[in-house]
Amino acid sequence: MIKAGIIGATGYAGQELIRLLYNHTKVEIIHLSSRSYAGKKLSEVYPNFTGILDIELAGMDAQQMADDCDVVFFALPHGLTAGQISEELLEKTKIIDIGADFRLKDKDVYESWYKVKHSAPQFLKEAVYGLCELNREQIKNARIVANPGCYTTCSITSLAPLVANKIIDNSTIIIDAKSGVSGAGRSLSLPALFPESNESFKAYGIGNHRHTPEIEQELSSISGKDIVLSFTPHLVPMNRGILTTAYASLAKDINSKELTSLYSEYYKDEKFIRIYQDGSLPETRFVRNSNFVDIGIKTDPRTKRVIAVAAIDNLVKGAAGQAVQNMNLMFGIQEDSGLNTVPTII
Amino acid sequence: MIKAGIIGATGYAGQELIRLLYNHTKVEIIHLSSRSYAGKKLSEVYPNFTGILDIELAGMDAQQMADDCDVVFFALPHGLTAGQISEELLEKTKIIDIGADFRLKDKDVYESWYKVKHSAPQFLKEAVYGLCELNREQIKNARIVANPGCYTTCSITSLAPLVANKIIDNSTIIIDAKSGVSGAGRSLSLPALFPESNESFKAYGIGNHRHTPEIEQELSSISGKDIVLSFTPHLVPMNRGILTTAYASLAKDINSKELTSLYSEYYKDEKFIRIYQDGSLPETRFVRNSNFVDIGIKTDPRTKRVIAVAAIDNLVKGAAGQAVQNMNLMFGIQEDSGLNTVPTII
Amino acid sequence: MIKAGIIGATGYAGQELIRLLYNHTKVEIIHLSSRSYAGKKLSEVYPNFTGILDIELAGMDAQQMADDCDVVFFALPHGLTAGQISEELLEKTKIIDIGADFRLKDKDVYESWYKVKHSAPQFLKEAVYGLCELNREQIKNARIVANPGCYTTCSITSLAPLVANKIIDNSTIIIDAKSGVSGAGRSLSLPALFPESNESFKAYGIGNHRHTPEIEQELSSISGKDIVLSFTPHLVPMNRGILTTAYASLAKDINSKELTSLYSEYYKDEKFIRIYQDGSLPETRFVRNSNFVDIGIKTDPRTKRVIAVAAIDNLVKGAAGQAVQNMNLMFGIQEDSGLNTVPTII
Amino acid sequence: MIKAGIIGATGYAGQELIRLLYNHTKVEIIHLSSRSYAGKKLSEVYPNFTGILDIELAGMDAQQMADDCDVVFFALPHGLTAGQISEELLEKTKIIDIGADFRLKDKDVYESWYKVKHSAPQFLKEAVYGLCELNREQIKNARIVANPGCYTTCSITSLAPLVANKIIDNSTIIIDAKSGVSGAGRSLSLPALFPESNESFKAYGIGNHRHTPEIEQELSSISGKDIVLSFTPHLVPMNRGILTTAYASLAKDINSKELTSLYSEYYKDEKFIRIYQDGSLPETRFVRNSNFVDIGIKTDPRTKRVIAVAAIDNLVKGAAGQAVQNMNLMFGIQEDSGLNTVPTII
Repeated sequence: MIKAGIIGATGYAGQELIRLLYNHTKVEIIHLSSRSYAGKKLSEVYPNFTGILDIELAGMDAQQMADDCDVVFFALPHGLTAGQISEELLEKTKIIDIGADFRLKDKDVYESWYKVKHSAPQFLKEAVYGLCELNREQIKNARIVANPGCYTTCSITSLAPLVANKIIDNSTIIIDAKSGVSGAGRSLSLPALFPESNESFKAYGIGNHRHTPEIEQELSSISGKDIVLSFTPHLVPMNRGILTTAYASLAKDINSKELTSLYSEYYKDEKFIRIYQDGSLPETRFVRNSNFVDIGIKTDPRTKRVIAVAAIDNLVKGAAGQAVQNMNLMFGIQEDSGLNTVPTII
Repeated sequence: MIKAGIIGATGYAGQELIRLLYNHTKVEIIHLSSRSYAGKKLSEVYPNFTGILDIELAGMDAQQMADDCDVVFFALPHGLTAGQISEELLEKTKIIDIGADFRLKDKDVYESWYKVKHSAPQFLKEAVYGLCELNREQIKNARIVANPGCYTTCSITSLAPLVANKIIDNSTIIIDAKSGVSGAGRSLSLPALFPESNESFKAYGIGNHRHTPEIEQELSSISGKDIVLSFTPHLVPMNRGILTTAYASLAKDINSKELTSLYSEYYKDEKFIRIYQDGSLPETRFVRNSNFVDIGIKTDPRTKRVIAVAAIDNLVKGAAGQAVQNMNLMFGIQEDSGLNTVPTII
Repeated sequence: MIKAGIIGATGYAGQELIRLLYNHTKVEIIHLSSRSYAGKKLSEVYPNFTGILDIELAGMDAQQMADDCDVVFFALPHGLTAGQISEELLEKTKIIDIGADFRLKDKDVYESWYKVKHSAPQFLKEAVYGLCELNREQIKNARIVANPGCYTTCSITSLAPLVANKIIDNSTIIIDAKSGVSGAGRSLSLPALFPESNESFKAYGIGNHRHTPEIEQELSSISGKDIVLSFTPHLVPMNRGILTTAYASLAKDINSKELTSLYSEYYKDEKFIRIYQDGSLPETRFVRNSNFVDIGIKTDPRTKRVIAVAAIDNLVKGAAGQAVQNMNLMFGIQEDSGLNTVPTII
Repeated sequence: MIKAGIIGATGYAGQELIRLLYNHTKVEIIHLSSRSYAGKKLSEVYPNFTGILDIELAGMDAQQMADDCDVVFFALPHGLTAGQISEELLEKTKIIDIGADFRLKDKDVYESWYKVKHSAPQFLKEAVYGLCELNREQIKNARIVANPGCYTTCSITSLAPLVANKIIDNSTIIIDAKSGVSGAGRSLSLPALFPESNESFKAYGIGNHRHTPEIEQELSSISGKDIVLSFTPHLVPMNRGILTTAYASLAKDINSKELTSLYSEYYKDEKFIRIYQDGSLPETRFVRNSNFVDIGIKTDPRTKRVIAVAAIDNLVKGAAGQAVQNMNLMFGIQEDSGLNTVPTII
């Protein structure tokens, strides 16, 4: 049994991770830590766990947790994890950071987008970007994995085959992204109140959303050349789900059918990436509560553009599910362990 | 492995059952039958199953299915199942009817509430009412189990301890019930359109909802005397979930704390029934995608009434989940097999 | 022109009142006061007012406002209004209190349910309970009107004809009420976050909701005898709307048709009360953004009970709309001025 | 009083138009026609009209209606209006077509996108495209006005200043559009059921949505050169509202502040177009139930693109409201008559 601990267990990503780990046959949850709710029982904070996992939330830090755990998940706001990582810690336990601190390879890029100083830049090189389908081999041997941002998994996987195969003019990439409200986390704010977000739709963070450099970094890495792109997130009045609609100008003559084949081939060994056939398109409900990335691709002969639509569950493949997938890879167990549930379409 | 077939596989209850059976380690899905979609692949109707269960939907009837299956689930509108049940069929396979045809013991009551003639009344006596927590022993030996209606499981379990212990005046029972829209099924109708049910709340079926006699039958059976009660269903603009608020006048002096203890004791061996403590109350999201019945009880000294609030997921404990629980009992395997998921609170 | 001011203008009731008064041809909005947003423009807090009413929010108190206004609306949490009311103030201006401070005639009842000391009990007798359809004549001459609570308007109007005509056993009244989330106001709290209230349904305040004594007071007044009743509120995942389902045992033999006629007769001169005919029932969307109370009545011969279903928009007839109706009465202008919009069914 | 009739009165656009015309002080509703509900009372189909407008729905055709009405609104699916328009009709009454039949100037373009033959192409030249802010003078003298599609008003108004001022490279325009579900109309279909569209988000009609040529036609007309662009609609789980996010590469060096000023100047005389200042962005709730187009503009120096975000209520400015605005212009009355309501933010 893998002994697991979670720091930041009572955020939305944290509680989803508890849910997934609880049903994982090879994992034992040892510690759950929460700054806000230390001393309370998990079921007092999340009554859905009543009678299932009546564990007490601790206030413990990473060092303590590392003594008892084979893997420690961090699910904290950016800036709070980096300061807790040390060589000593990494010798004791494996780290999966669901937050943002180790995703960007370049300290300056991190500090410029996040407006904070990075307190452990010495681990940026070692940390592996945990998009499993792209970096599987490195993840297997990593001591520290940076779990991708919710928007980025969807964005990168739906554009990777185009960039890798030089199908598009990379300077024309535009990603129009839409997320359910759980993506905003559990902190109190006026715009997150039900009557303020229900029955409404809006854009936010135009030109400055922090997932942008992450997407650019990974696609640039695939491309071999620097990619700069537009990324615009929007808020959808629903709990879960992200859908991205990515646009780019075609650099070669190719139709929808050929592109779909190319995607199917590119991801042919990937259980969690489903390529839609015959012009059908993903919807967020088709992946709800699952670890899938669903992708549909169309070319538009009128405008000579390709439009790639992708859907994930932001709390699963966009956070906790991919963290479990990363853990599975790091511990050499079957990659889909604990992730075999069927999406709940209703 | 239990070989299972489903007739009516593409309704909301049917697809939920496929989802649960797919993850059940002791079950193999052999046949799925659908009148509307025979010949199509399951994933064409429900794209969430893409790459998971690429089975073709058959148009076959119960007789054919019985040859290959150890258990056949019926998930059909009322009146359509009874005509397919025969002694010959029951000698070949076990039957779990998620529909209404075998729930009422009295043929006349059935015909009066459902306005159709019952075509297999000879099996009404044999059929066991499949509310697992109440009729566990009979279910184990049943050939045909009538899975309870979605509203009834919630209503009966939250009132049973009161009736069994003669705590209330049975003539004063009022159940005010609220259901998510998936309870209305998948048929096309104007009131089921998104803009007609979203952002609105309504009552329906006042005084004539067909789950009423079912609740009366089971509570009367517990009481030993005939119970007549008020039942009013309402529609909530959400996908899943039922919450019932039941009222009755207290026949003895008892407070909230004592009643809560009594409920806890009454259901002490029941994994799927959770009694809320210290005045806390269930919410439908605390049981979403799970087989739990969550119950909170309060007495009101001003009015000398008890109010029992209960929540279930209408598609799980209210339909497919309880059907799986019944199957587990009928086949002598662990009662919670395939039903161990944690509710998804978000 | 009636010169109007609002204290507590940026809560949900307050902003709705601004919206209604802005379109009222006989009213001029003079001052808007907000403790939280004083100094900001209204459109910074509520961008829907951009280019329509670019007024600055003041932090002024009632005394200042009274100098300039013919009527001052208070839309504050309970306990905050009473302290601002004085004889001096009432000599300058008319007061409509949308809050709770002057609704209950009995200071002890107020203090017992609200757990605060009442700081202006000397005006409790003078204040008129502003349910327009019941107390029209008194309202016309009032200096201070206590606007009813959102749940109470719906509850009282749907039961009044039964109580007035001695149709029911008053000791059996149960009101099961359901409200949209805007009823909880605009303050920050975890349960009010979108992902915590969306796709879920719950009961709250069982046996102790503060609208209970208000309903009892008014129905007792109609009855001439003390009425004690059960009232249970629930939260519906929608922005606006309240629906109440009221139950009582019939004290005489009467059917749905006769009762419907009795209601139609009782409210025959009331523009804002619509009695549904032929067994049809109200839905909250049928009254959205309007000042109507829609009522449907059914008797259940099996249980000898009557079930009265009523719907209002909690922010209009449940708060700001009724406040405008009260103002119209107090100033002798047409009662429906500014309230003639058609409900928006979509 | 303007005597008005509506053909197709019971669709979502039709009922919204009734609602607006009912409150219009210069209009009298003479006839409402509905193929599906002829003979029924309006309030039987839409109970929100109970006691307000108890008119009977007729099955009459345009010719009959024209005898009694000064203006006839058509709110029919495409292809059904063209066949009813004749010189004789236009001599009797003015026509406002909320449908698509007279929006495209080029018969071939219409037939290619709509896949039907146009049955009155002789009026295509005469018909005026009814985007009031762009074609005000022509509308004033028109006999037949083609009300714009819901997506197009938002798209065109948010891009017009850029095209008119040659700010962008017109070949790079991409419009990513999102609509509430009422945009799909009131016809029965599986994807429109509540449980199938609630809590989900999807794209549809990629590369072939029929509003595309309309947007291209109007922007080309402003530009003086042919514009071909990408348009992708999406479905948002909410009743009302459209938000468009438009992207284009900047052809000159300009920042957000300068662009905002340019928009403010371009629309300085337009009451119904509101330009957001200081980087703030529209949300669909800020325009709900109103005739406003709200626009926010940002440039992104990293990608040298402009992003223009615009929001409307699809049933008001996107359909019925703009139809009323067109009527006001055609009859020489104040342009905002009947359209002065404040958006309902909750």
